Amino acid sequence: MIEAYYPPKASVLSYFSSLSSSDIPQKYARVTIHHGSAPEPVVKDYLVGPLPIGPSTRMEHLTEIYHLDAIPHNARGFDTRDWTAPEIFEKMAAPIMEAYEELLGGTPQDTLTTAGSGPFSFDGSFRRLWLGWRRNTPGFFLHPLNLYQYVDLSGTDPSQWDQLKIVYNHQVFDSPESFMEAFHNGSLKRVPVIDPDTDLSYSTRKRIGAQRDLDHLPGPRSVSFAGLRFRVDRDLQYVSWMGWGLYLGFDRDMGLSLWDIRFRGERIVYELKPQEALAQYAGNDPFQATTAWLDRYFGMGQSVRDMLPGYDCPHEAVYLPATTYSTDGLTTRQRAICIFEHDSERPLTRHLGYEENEFGAVKGYELVIRSIATVGKCVDFVFLRDDAENRTLAMITFDYIFHLDGTIEVRLSASGYLQAGFYDGTQGQYGNRIWETSMGSLHDHVINYKVDLDVAGTANSLLKTTLSQEAVTQPWFEDDWGDEVIQQVVTREYIDDENDALLKFPTNFQGAFALVNQEETNKWGTSRGYAIHPGYSPIHNTVVGSKRLLKNANWARYNLAVSRRKETEPSSSSMWNFNLPGGPPVDFHKFFDGENITQEDLVAWVNLGMHHLPQSEDAPNTRTNTATSSFFLTPLNYFDHDVSIESTNAVLLKNPEKPGDSFTYDDYGVQPAHCLPEHPSPFEYHPAKMFDLDGRPAPASSIENMRKASELYHRIKLEL
Amino acid sequence: MIEAYYPPKASVLSYFSSLSSSDIPQKYARVTIHHGSAPEPVVKDYLVGPLPIGPSTRMEHLTEIYHLDAIPHNARGFDTRDWTAPEIFEKMAAPIMEAYEELLGGTPQDTLTTAGSGPFSFDGSFRRLWLGWRRNTPGFFLHPLNLYQYVDLSGTDPSQWDQLKIVYNHQVFDSPESFMEAFHNGSLKRVPVIDPDTDLSYSTRKRIGAQRDLDHLPGPRSVSFAGLRFRVDRDLQYVSWMGWGLYLGFDRDMGLSLWDIRFRGERIVYELKPQEALAQYAGNDPFQATTAWLDRYFGMGQSVRDMLPGYDCPHEAVYLPATTYSTDGLTTRQRAICIFEHDSERPLTRHLGYEENEFGAVKGYELVIRSIATVGKCVDFVFLRDDAENRTLAMITFDYIFHLDGTIEVRLSASGYLQAGFYDGTQGQYGNRIWETSMGSLHDHVINYKVDLDVAGTANSLLKTTLSQEAVTQPWFEDDWGDEVIQQVVTREYIDDENDALLKFPTNFQGAFALVNQEETNKWGTSRGYAIHPGYSPIHNTVVGSKRLLKNANWARYNLAVSRRKETEPSSSSMWNFNLPGGPPVDFHKFFDGENITQEDLVAWVNLGMHHLPQSEDAPNTRTNTATSSFFLTPLNYFDHDVSIESTNAVLLKNPEKPGDSFTYDDYGVQPAHCLPEHPSPFEYHPAKMFDLDGRPAPASSIENMRKASELYHRIKLEL
Repeated sequence: MIEAYYPPKASVLSYFSSLSSSDIPQKYARVTIHHGSAPEPVVKDYLVGPLPIGPSTRMEHLTEIYHLDAIPHNARGFDTRDWTAPEIFEKMAAPIMEAYEELLGGTPQDTLTTAGSGPFSFDGSFRRLWLGWRRNTPGFFLHPLNLYQYVDLSGTDPSQWDQLKIVYNHQVFDSPESFMEAFHNGSLKRVPVIDPDTDLSYSTRKRIGAQRDLDHLPGPRSVSFAGLRFRVDRDLQYVSWMGWGLYLGFDRDMGLSLWDIRFRGERIVYELKPQEALAQYAGNDPFQATTAWLDRYFGMGQSVRDMLPGYDCPHEAVYLPATTYSTDGLTTRQRAICIFEHDSERPLTRHLGYEENEFGAVKGYELVIRSIATVGKCVDFVFLRDDAENRTLAMITFDYIFHLDGTIEVRLSASGYLQAGFYDGTQGQYGNRIWETSMGSLHDHVINYKVDLDVAGTANSLLKTTLSQEAVTQPWFEDDWGDEVIQQVVTREYIDDENDALLKFPTNFQGAFALVNQEETNKWGTSRGYAIHPGYSPIHNTVVGSKRLLKNANWARYNLAVSRRKETEPSSSSMWNFNLPGGPPVDFHKFFDGENITQEDLVAWVNLGMHHLPQSEDAPNTRTNTATSSFFLTPLNYFDHDVSIESTNAVLLKNPEKPGDSFTYDDYGVQPAHCLPEHPSPFEYHPAKMFDLDGRPAPASSIENMRKASELYHRIKLEL
Repeated sequence: MIEAYYPPKASVLSYFSSLSSSDIPQKYARVTIHHGSAPEPVVKDYLVGPLPIGPSTRMEHLTEIYHLDAIPHNARGFDTRDWTAPEIFEKMAAPIMEAYEELLGGTPQDTLTTAGSGPFSFDGSFRRLWLGWRRNTPGFFLHPLNLYQYVDLSGTDPSQWDQLKIVYNHQVFDSPESFMEAFHNGSLKRVPVIDPDTDLSYSTRKRIGAQRDLDHLPGPRSVSFAGLRFRVDRDLQYVSWMGWGLYLGFDRDMGLSLWDIRFRGERIVYELKPQEALAQYAGNDPFQATTAWLDRYFGMGQSVRDMLPGYDCPHEAVYLPATTYSTDGLTTRQRAICIFEHDSERPLTRHLGYEENEFGAVKGYELVIRSIATVGKCVDFVFLRDDAENRTLAMITFDYIFHLDGTIEVRLSASGYLQAGFYDGTQGQYGNRIWETSMGSLHDHVINYKVDLDVAGTANSLLKTTLSQEAVTQPWFEDDWGDEVIQQVVTREYIDDENDALLKFPTNFQGAFALVNQEETNKWGTSRGYAIHPGYSPIHNTVVGSKRLLKNANWARYNLAVSRRKETEPSSSSMWNFNLPGGPPVDFHKFFDGENITQEDLVAWVNLGMHHLPQSEDAPNTRTNTATSSFFLTPLNYFDHDVSIESTNAVLLKNPEKPGDSFTYDDYGVQPAHCLPEHPSPFEYHPAKMFDLDGRPAPASSIENMRKASELYHRIKLEL
C-alpha cells in the first residue's frame, strides 16, 4: 500500500499563515510492505520522501506513530494467493463433503458459502478463525447454517495449515474423522434440512406487498431554482457555503476526512476524521461469540462505492470522485462523495412578538457532505467457485452537516444486512428470531472520530460542566414557601490531567464537555468554546475486558476522550489493530500518560454507535431512521450572539398599522425563485473506472474481475 | 371555559367497530366556572351533556378525573379585571416611583415593564408572586433589572393586597418605607444605571453582519412536481399518507393532538398528546429562584399562532385552522397546523451487493405534522400603560414525523427568547453572561406526552430489555484464546406492577422499553411490540423535591412511565396544577397504585426535554438545532420484516451483463416528475379571525384589542 502521509500540523499552519510557496510542506508517502519471505516474516510501514523522488528522498522504517515496531505476519492482510494452496481445500472441505450435502442441504461448489470470523489472532502468534457456513443465496448473510469449522492458517507454509475443530448443532469434534464417524454411525444429533423449494427471498430487496396510496407519484424533490449556493473547487477539493470553508481528504482506511474547517474566517477544526469502527457480537455459536470486527482493517475508504443519484443523495447534489488502490491498480469512483444543500424545513431560529423587530424566522438550511461505505465485515471464502462475490454487509452513511450558526452535526446512519446467527430456540438471550432458522444477533457498533478542534487558536483546555442539585437559603425567602429552595446549580471545572480525560456523559446528561480557549474571551468575558454535544444514540461499548478487544479498541469504553495532540499519535487505531488485541500497533490507552492538557493543542476522540439488538424489521435491511447516531460540535460562548441572524433567507415582520391590515415584512430581497428547473438526469450507474499499476486505463475487464480488484479483503477464495 | 370532553375509549372503539350511527358516542362538554363571588370562592369543572342540549342534558360537577374536588380560588387564572383596583398601583408602584426612575433608569409608564414569577401558590392558601423589572424594549426578556417586589394578591378583596418585600441589588426590605429610607439616606448599595443611549438592539431579530456568500439567492425548495402525496379531509380533520391514517384534535391546554393513528390498517396509537411543559429555573435572585412554570396553565393550544409560510413550513405545506377561545369570544387561526411531505434526503434502507436483488435503496420520505406554540411563560404587568404587549417567550415546535416503516418520531424544537436574569458577577453558577448586565439562567425543560399505544390490540404488557455483560465458557473455545468469553447478553422482563413502571433509561442506554402484546406474535413467534426509543436529548428533570414542584409534576422525574389506562386518568396534568404544587388537581404519582399492568390497556407517559444552560448564542433567540428533543415509536418484531420494502419510490439494480456496460435497474415506474411548478404564493400574514361570544364575526378591532383577546394570561395590566 502507498498512501499520502499527512505533513506535521505546524508545517501546515505555517504555510497557511504565509501562503508562501517556500513554506509548502514537503510531501511524504507511507508505504506498507509485507515481508512474507523474510526469515521472521513481518509487515512494516515505511516513510518515503520528500516526494517527488530526488536526491534527498529517503525510505525509513516508520515506527514513531506505533506502539509496535513491526506487524507480526500472522496479523497480515488476506490475499487470494493465500488460498490457492490445494491443502486448504483438501484438508478442510474435502473430508466432510458428504456432511455438507446431507446436513446443510448443498455443497460448497454451489448452494453453500462460508466466511471467517475475526479477529484471527491475539498477538500474532497464530492465525486461526472460525468458518461459518451459509446458504449461497442473495442476502446470504441472513442464511446462517449450523456448521462451524475452526481452522489454523498460521505461518506461511500452507502444508502446515489444518482444521482444529468442527462444531455442528452444538456438538464438538476435534477432527474431520471423528465428525464423520458420528455422521455415519447415527450418533450425530441432526437438525432438519430445509426443504429445497423453500422461498428464500425474504433476504432480498425485491419489492413485495401492495403499492401504497399515491406511491405511484414521485415524492417531493429539492430544487435550487436560482442555482446552487455552495462552491466546490474540484482541484483543491475545497468546499464553501454560507461562511463555512473546508478541504476534503480521502484515504484507504476510513475514507472521507475534513480538514481546516473554518467558519467566518476562523479555523474551528483542523482535522475531522473517522478512526475506526468496532462491531462486537454475542452468541452461543462459535462464529458470533468470537466476532469483534475492526473495520479499518478491511478499508472503509476502499469500500466506498458510487452513490445512487436521486436515492442516496438528491438529484441536484454535486459529486466528487475518490481513488482507492489495490494490488492490481487504482479504482476511481466518480460519485464517492456528494454535497448538497438541505432544507431542514424547520426554522433555525424563530420568534413571534409584537414589539418592533421581535417577529421573524431564519430558515434552517444545512450543507451536507456525505459518503457511504459498504463495509464487508466478513472475510468470505468460496470453495471451488470461480465467480467472485462481493460480500458487503453493512452500509454506513457518513454525514457532516453544517449549520448557519456555526454548528456541525457529525452523523452516521447504518443500513444493509445483519450478520445473522443460526436460530434453534436456544439463542434467545443473544437476539431475536427473524426467519425460520435465522436470528439477528446482539452486537454493539462503536465508531471513533478524531476531532482536532482549534477553538480560537490551538491552545485549548477541557471544560467539564456539571449540573447538580443544591439546597440554598436566601434572606428574601418567605415563610409561606419555607426558607430553603432546592434548585439546580452549575459547576465548572477544567480537567488538567490527560488521565482524567477518558470521559462518559453524566447520568441524565447533567453536564457537558467542551474545548475552550481560556485566554480568548467573547465580548461578555466568557472563554470562547466549542461544545461536544450528544445527538442520537450517544453510547459507548457495553463489553469491557473481552480478550478479543483487550487493548486494540479501548477508545470504545468511553463516550469521548481528550488528549494532547501529537504528531506521534495521529490516530486512535491502525489497519493492523484488528488482529492484535493483545499487542496492538496503536494502543489508545498509551495516549493517556498523565500529561497536562491545559491550554495545549488538544484532540477530542468522540464515539458514535448503537447497541443493536436486531429484530424482524432488520430484514431485509436495517433502517437508517433508528440505526443512527450523531454528535454536534457547537459554539459555546464562542460568539457574542447567534450569528445565524446574518442570514438573508429570513423574514422580519412588522405589525399592521391599521386594524384588519396584513402584516408588512422584510424578506431582505430574497424571494423564492420560480422557473422550469433543469430536468433531473436519467438514472444511470456505471462500473468504476480501473487503472493498472502504471496508472494506465485498464483494459475492459469482466465485472467479476473489477470486483476482485476492488474487494481485496472482502472476497477471498479458497480454490483447488 | 367550554371545551369538548373526549368520550370514553370503549365507546369510540365500539363505534369504530360498527360504524353504525347508533353507536356514535354521546357528546359532552367540560365547563370551567370561576365561582369568585361564592362565600368560599372556588373554581369548578362541570360535565355538560349529552349535547346538543335536550331533555336528558345534565350539568354535573366533574370530579372523577381530579384528585381535588374544587380548585382553590387563589390558584385561579388571572384576569385583567383582577388588576384594575386602584390599590394595586397605589400600594406597589406609587410609593417607590422615585426609586424606579433613579435606580432602574425609567418609569413603569414608559421605559420599564414588569412580570410575575410562578407558581403563585402552594396549596391555595395564598396568592403571592415576585415581580421582576425589565427594560421595556424589544426583546425585553433579555433586559432584566435588579429590583424585585414580592406581592400578596390573595383573596378577592384588592384592599387586602399588599407588597411584602422589596429586593434591590441583594438588599432586602420589608416595606416600601424602609426601602425608600435606605434609598434616601445613602445606605442603599447601588448598581450603576445604564447609559440611556446604550444600544439595546442585541435583543431584537434585526439582521446584522455582512451578507454571506450566495445568500442573496433563495435556498433549495421542496416541490412535489407530480402533486402532493398525502390526503387531508378538512371536515373530519383526517390525514393519510403511505399507509398511515390519523385524526387531528386541538384544545386550549396543549394544542394539537393525534387520534387513532393507524398504519396499514392497524391502530398503533389511540391518543398521542402533549400533557404539560415544565420549565424550572435556578438563580440567586428572587425571580429566577422561584420560577417553575407549568405551561398548560397558560394554554399552549391557546397560544398557537399562524405559521409563516415558507419559513415555518415549506411553501407547499397544507395548513389547517384551529379555534381557541377566551372570555371575549373565539379566535380562529387559519394556519395553526401544517402538514407536508419531507424528503430526509437519506435513504431509509439501502444496500450494495452483486447478488440478484441485493442492490437498491428506498427513499427516506417522511410526513410531518406540525404546530408551533408561542409560550408566554411570564405573567406580565404593565403599570399605567394602555398599549397592550404580547409577552410571548419560548416558541415550541411540535413535530410528528411519520416514516415508511411504521416509525413515528415525536420531536420538539425550541426557539424564542430566554427568561434572562440580571448579571452582576455573583451569578456564574446559575448561568452564563450574555450581555452587559444580562445572563442566561440555567433551567430544565421537560415536556410530557401521553402515548396511548394499542399494539396489536388494547391488551399490552411492558417489556423491559436489559443489555449486560457475561462471562461464559463453551466446549468449543480453544486454549489459544482461553476458555471463557466476555460478551453481551439480553435479559427480558415483563414489568407487572404499575409501581415498578416509573422508568429511567439505563446507563449507556443498555436496554430499552416497549409495549408488546404477549398474545399476538409475528410470523417468527415473537410477541408483537412497539418500542419507545430515545432520540435527541432523552432527559428528565434534574431537580427532585423542590417545594414549587412538590407533587404537581412528578412525571418529570422519569424518562417515561407506564400506567393502566383509565377514563379517570385522562391526563398527567391539568391547567390548574401550576399553582397547586402542594395539592394538585392531578397528582401523577397517584396513578401508580400497585395495579397489575400485564395484558391491560396501557398508557406510556413519555418525556422530552433539555437541560438549558444558556450561552451567548442564545441571543437574540435560542437555536432549534441543538434545542431539540425527540423520541421514536418504532415497530419491534411487530411485522415479519421491514414493510418499507413496499415503497415504489425506490430502486433495484441489476448487474451489467457485459464488461463496461451500465447497470440496469427497476424504478417501479416512478421517475422524477418535471414541469414548471406552481409559483409559490407571495408571502402574507394576516391577523387572526375573531368571533364574539355568540359566534358572530367580531367587528374590526384594533391590533391591541385582538391581542388582548387572545393573550388572556400573557398580558395582564395593572391600571390606575
